[in-house]
Amino acid sequence: MSAPGQPQNTIYLPKGFSFSALSAGIKVSGRLDLALVEACLGTTAAALFTKNRVVAAPVEIGRDHLAKMRGRMRAVIVNSGNANCATGKPGLQACERICRETAGALGLKPEEVFPSSTGIIGVLLPVKKIAAKVPELAAGCEPTQDSMGQFAQAIMTTDTRRKLASAQFRSGKSKVSLLGIAKGSGMIHPQMATMLVYIFTDIAASPKELAHHLREASDQTFNCMSVDGDMSTNDTVLLLASGKSGVRLTGSLATKKFSDALLGICQSLAGQIVADGEGVRHVIHLSIEQAQNRQEALRVARAIAHSLLVKTAWAGADPNWGRILAAIGACGVPVDPNRVSIYIEGQMVCRGGVGCHFDSLRAHANLSQPRCEIVVRLGRGSGAAGFTTTDLTEEYVRINADYST
Amino acid sequence: MSAPGQPQNTIYLPKGFSFSALSAGIKVSGRLDLALVEACLGTTAAALFTKNRVVAAPVEIGRDHLAKMRGRMRAVIVNSGNANCATGKPGLQACERICRETAGALGLKPEEVFPSSTGIIGVLLPVKKIAAKVPELAAGCEPTQDSMGQFAQAIMTTDTRRKLASAQFRSGKSKVSLLGIAKGSGMIHPQMATMLVYIFTDIAASPKELAHHLREASDQTFNCMSVDGDMSTNDTVLLLASGKSGVRLTGSLATKKFSDALLGICQSLAGQIVADGEGVRHVIHLSIEQAQNRQEALRVARAIAHSLLVKTAWAGADPNWGRILAAIGACGVPVDPNRVSIYIEGQMVCRGGVGCHFDSLRAHANLSQPRCEIVVRLGRGSGAAGFTTTDLTEEYVRINADYST
Repeated sequence: MSAPGQPQNTIYLPKGFSFSALSAGIKVSGRLDLALVEACLGTTAAALFTKNRVVAAPVEIGRDHLAKMRGRMRAVIVNSGNANCATGKPGLQACERICRETAGALGLKPEEVFPSSTGIIGVLLPVKKIAAKVPELAAGCEPTQDSMGQFAQAIMTTDTRRKLASAQFRSGKSKVSLLGIAKGSGMIHPQMATMLVYIFTDIAASPKELAHHLREASDQTFNCMSVDGDMSTNDTVLLLASGKSGVRLTGSLATKKFSDALLGICQSLAGQIVADGEGVRHVIHLSIEQAQNRQEALRVARAIAHSLLVKTAWAGADPNWGRILAAIGACGVPVDPNRVSIYIEGQMVCRGGVGCHFDSLRAHANLSQPRCEIVVRLGRGSGAAGFTTTDLTEEYVRINADYST
Repeated sequence: MSAPGQPQNTIYLPKGFSFSALSAGIKVSGRLDLALVEACLGTTAAALFTKNRVVAAPVEIGRDHLAKMRGRMRAVIVNSGNANCATGKPGLQACERICRETAGALGLKPEEVFPSSTGIIGVLLPVKKIAAKVPELAAGCEPTQDSMGQFAQAIMTTDTRRKLASAQFRSGKSKVSLLGIAKGSGMIHPQMATMLVYIFTDIAASPKELAHHLREASDQTFNCMSVDGDMSTNDTVLLLASGKSGVRLTGSLATKKFSDALLGICQSLAGQIVADGEGVRHVIHLSIEQAQNRQEALRVARAIAHSLLVKTAWAGADPNWGRILAAIGACGVPVDPNRVSIYIEGQMVCRGGVGCHFDSLRAHANLSQPRCEIVVRLGRGSGAAGFTTTDLTEEYVRINADYST
C-alpha cells in the first residue's frame, strides 16, 4: 500500500468486472458524468449508507435492491452532477427507470442494478438524457485499466483528482486482487462513509462475510475523518466480490490477508479524500489519548475537528493551541483542563492546561507542511482514537458559496 | 428600543456608575485596552458565565468574588488583548494582583472588584504594565457619556464597532435607567452568553432578583445566537444595580417594566454582536416551528446554524435549501423529511421534503439583504424557537487564520 493521501502507481484489476463511462450532459461542463460497472454472474455485495435521515432516492433503492437480491448484484450505475435527493416520488421513479434501462441493456433484472447519484440536492434528475445514453454506456463496458480510469473520472464532482487504491495477495497458487474507487471532497464527516466508494475484489465470499469486513474497515477509516462536518444524503460504500480468483474467503490466513488488504485500501482512499477536501491546504492527523474510552476520544476529536476557530488557525499554520483547549472544554466530555496536554508534531505546547515554552517557529513550520500530527492527552484513562481532518481555508468558502448558483 | 443590530441614538446613563479607560500597552496597536467601572456603595450584582470547562482566570476569580461578597460589587476592571486563560497559577495570581491594585486605588476590598479579560488564550497577562496604569485609570473615573464611550471602546478585540443599548422607564415620579455595553464578534455560540456584556441600572434590587431577571433575558437572547459555534472560555454577562434611582424592583408593574427593558437591551446587544460577527455579510434569523418542544427546535436551529455548507451558501446568497434539509437530517432529531417545509423570507422553497417551484431570483435577492428570515416547519408538534446566526465568508477565515501569529 502507498501512504494515505497518495494515489498508487500499481493498480490491480480484479477479475469479473468491466467499466464504462461517458458524458450524458448532466454536468453543464460536458465532462464525464455517467458511469457503469458490469459484474459477472455470482457477484456478491455488501454496502454501508449515510446515517442522515434525509436520504437520496438511489440510497433508498440501492438498499431495497440489495435486500431483494439477498446481496447479489450485477451492475452499478452512477451519475454525477445531480444527487437525486429531496426530489420526492418523481425522484424515486427516475431512479427506478435508470435501473430498468440499465437492466434492459445488460439483460438483467432491475433489482440486480445498484444505483448511485452525487451532485446538487433538490433538482430533478434529467432522466431522459440519462436513459438515452444507457445503451451506448452498456455497450462500452470493458475490463481495462483505461475504462476503469474513466469510471473513476466520471463519478467526480468538486474532486480535483481521481481516488484509487489497490492491493493484491497470494493464497496458495492463486492471486486475489482488490481495487477501490472513491469520490468525495465536500460534505465529508464521520458517522458514515460520507462519499461514494466502490471496492471490487475477485475473492469469493458471502454477502454476510463482506458486510462484516466492510464494517470493520470503515469504522477505522471513513468514520474517523472529517473535512467540513456535514453529513451527506447520498453516502455509499459498496463492496463487490466476483469470486473469479477462485479463492474463498475462508480459513484464518486468507481472511487475515483479505481484511488487511481491505483496511489498507480504505485507509488510502480515506486519506486521498481528506487530502482532496475542498480548499484544503493542510491535513491534520489528531491522536486523542488517555480518554476513558474510544467513544470519548472520538467525541473530543470531532469537537476539535469541527471548531471553525481551530480549523482557521490551521489554515494560517498558527500553533494557537488555546483554541484546541477551548474546543475540548466545550465538547461536553467532563475533562479536567489541568490534566490536558497538547503536542504539535512531537513538541509539547501545553502541559496540564497551561502553555509551556516551546519553539513556535518550529511549530509553525510543522503546521505549514501538507500533513501534521497533533496529539492530545486527556489524563482520564487509556482510551484512544485517531482522526484525520483538515484546515478551513478561504478557498473552501469560495467553492461552497458559488457551487450551485 | 431600536431594532436589533442597530446601535441606539439615545443613551441613558444610570446613576451611580463612573467609567474610565486608557491604553496600558497590552495591544500592540496602542489602542485602548484597559477599562474600569466604579459603582457606588450598595451596588448589587448578578452574573452568568461560560459553560466551557476551560475557563479563564478572571472567570474563576469573578465567580469567587461574587460569592464572597454575596452579590455586592463596587468595581469592574476589564482588559482586552489578553484572555488570561490557560495561564495556570501565574494567571490566577496576575488576576488577583490586578484586583488588589484596583481595590487599593479605589479604597475597596479586593473581593469587591470584578475582573474580566478578553483576547488571546495561553499568553501570560502583562501584569506589571497593567498594575502600573491602575492608579491613573482609577483617577480618571467619570460618570459621563464620554468616559462610558471610552469604556465601550476599550473592551473591543476584533469588534468593528462599539455595542451599546439603553432604556429608561418611569416608576411613579422616578425614572429608572438601564445601559448595556457589550463586546464580541468571534467565538459566539449559544449555551452561554458568549461574550462580555455589562448591564448597568440604577434600580434597587437584591442579587437574587437580578440573577432571576438576567437568566430569563439571556435565555431568550444571548443563548439563541451563533456566529461560529465556538464557545469562549471567558464569556461573562454582568448586571449591576446601584439603587440610585430610588425605585425598588418590587410590585408587578415595576417588575414588568424592568424585565421588558432588560430583555430589550439584551435583544439589541445580541443583534449588534451577531451583525458585527467576524466577516459577516448576512444575518439570518431562523424560525424553527412545529418541533416537539423548544429544546428540539433549538437543536435543529443549531444544526443549521453550524453547518459550513449552509453558512457558505448564505455567503453566496444562494437559496440552496437542500443543504438546510441535509443539516436537519443529520442533527439527530428523528425528523420525517417528508413533513419538512422551508421558507425563505415568506416564500416556500421546499414542501414535504421536496423542492417546489419558486422564484429563485427573488430568494437570491432576499438572501442578499443584510438580514433575511428563514422558517423551517418540522411537522412534529407545536414547539418553536427563534435563533439568530450568520453566513460564513472568506473574510472570517482571513481574520481567524491571521489573528494570533
